[in-house]
Amino acid sequence: MTAPLTVRALRPLPEVAPGDDLAALVLAAHDGAPFRADDAVVVSHKVVSKAEGALVDLATVEVSARAAELAAELEKEPELVQLILDGTREIVRARRGVLICRTHHGFVCANAGVDRSNVEDGWAVTLPADPDASARRLRAALPGRPAVVIADSFGRAWRHGQAEVAIGCAGLRAVADERGATDRHGRELKATVIATADHVASAADLMRGKASGQPAVVVGGLGDHVTAEDGPGASTLVRPADEDLFGA
Amino acid sequence: MTAPLTVRALRPLPEVAPGDDLAALVLAAHDGAPFRADDAVVVSHKVVSKAEGALVDLATVEVSARAAELAAELEKEPELVQLILDGTREIVRARRGVLICRTHHGFVCANAGVDRSNVEDGWAVTLPADPDASARRLRAALPGRPAVVIADSFGRAWRHGQAEVAIGCAGLRAVADERGATDRHGRELKATVIATADHVASAADLMRGKASGQPAVVVGGLGDHVTAEDGPGASTLVRPADEDLFGA
Repeated sequence: MTAPLTVRALRPLPEVAPGDDLAALVLAAHDGAPFRADDAVVVSHKVVSKAEGALVDLATVEVSARAAELAAELEKEPELVQLILDGTREIVRARRGVLICRTHHGFVCANAGVDRSNVEDGWAVTLPADPDASARRLRAALPGRPAVVIADSFGRAWRHGQAEVAIGCAGLRAVADERGATDRHGRELKATVIATADHVASAADLMRGKASGQPAVVVGGLGDHVTAEDGPGASTLVRPADEDLFGA
Repeated sequence: MTAPLTVRALRPLPEVAPGDDLAALVLAAHDGAPFRADDAVVVSHKVVSKAEGALVDLATVEVSARAAELAAELEKEPELVQLILDGTREIVRARRGVLICRTHHGFVCANAGVDRSNVEDGWAVTLPADPDASARRLRAALPGRPAVVIADSFGRAWRHGQAEVAIGCAGLRAVADERGATDRHGRELKATVIATADHVASAADLMRGKASGQPAVVVGGLGDHVTAEDGPGASTLVRPADEDLFGA
């Protein structure tokens, strides 16, 4: 047997504020020890957003007529709806108090990822503007240059429970394309494109509860899944709407 | 830090045939050693289907008029389409050579899970009839009574790459419901229902390629995710169509 994959939650981080050095906080939670090149440091997007200042005081949001109308229809706060619309390229569904949005990044998720849990009352946190760039920066700042995955929890079609997905990554083959490989009968494997970065995010989530203040998890022993180059990141996991059989 | 989660692929299994004792094969690949109670043995559904005889010689399939018509439209083999329809409660989409089906179990996946890779030419493998029951049987037969997850790879809406999902499980909290828990600001965590069994399946998939003949993976150190009771299984992950905002 080859060496196992390991998944370890780092100690809770202190509350993260805009301008904080997230790499320094993650490193301290790792006792200052360098990471290994085949580790992936998986961080909840929320601490990335907070460190980058992607936090909004809802009292400062100017509400458009469209947001006000939608807010009334969905029985949501108008300021929150405005913030959701600001992050939205296209509304996929609007029902039962929930907006399913395609964000400017191309992610399809509830409320465009705008979230009020784990933030101060009256504030909301938005998704990082460019999560792959955030992952590259964090990677460059971490000793040992581990892969980095920025994770979020997205609802999904047809299944209960949120899936953990990579919204940003660096140094990891986000998608493993095994098309062209053959099975033991010599038959070509079809449709075998594996969402590796999402698998890493999911593995990490097994080791922390959302309420635990443990936003950073180290997945070790990733072998060939990691790459020396930062690579194209998690944006490669976004399926263009016109290729989408499942979501259409 | 608590003990890490570990993920280990077992040695390749021999080719599995109908009537084979899958538990004995998995145990042999684990060197006969008992499992731990907080292990989950994750097996690809395909070996479960094969052991249970869920294999069909396409030459024996009688093709209905509807299957013939759909096959012509999608440019697929009529016998294969018939087999897909046999496993389907509802066709969700039919396009570009692909049928997205809701199976009798309630899973939404391509071709109702009917698959020709890793099987003999001219044959196809179907999903186990009751994957939670299969998981319970396998669990009962494995020394140490680990949790068991039966995994498959499903395409999904909006994202490239297949997600690994649990189609059956026993001894694992398939869904972790953290609603009612509070964050560090005392704010209730909303919509925090975590698809734990799918996370376990995803973690396992990081340690094996589809072509490697390593269908069994042990995820160790699952702590509170495992349960002494078999529990309701992965059927709890199926979201009824009328509650489904994402898939509608």
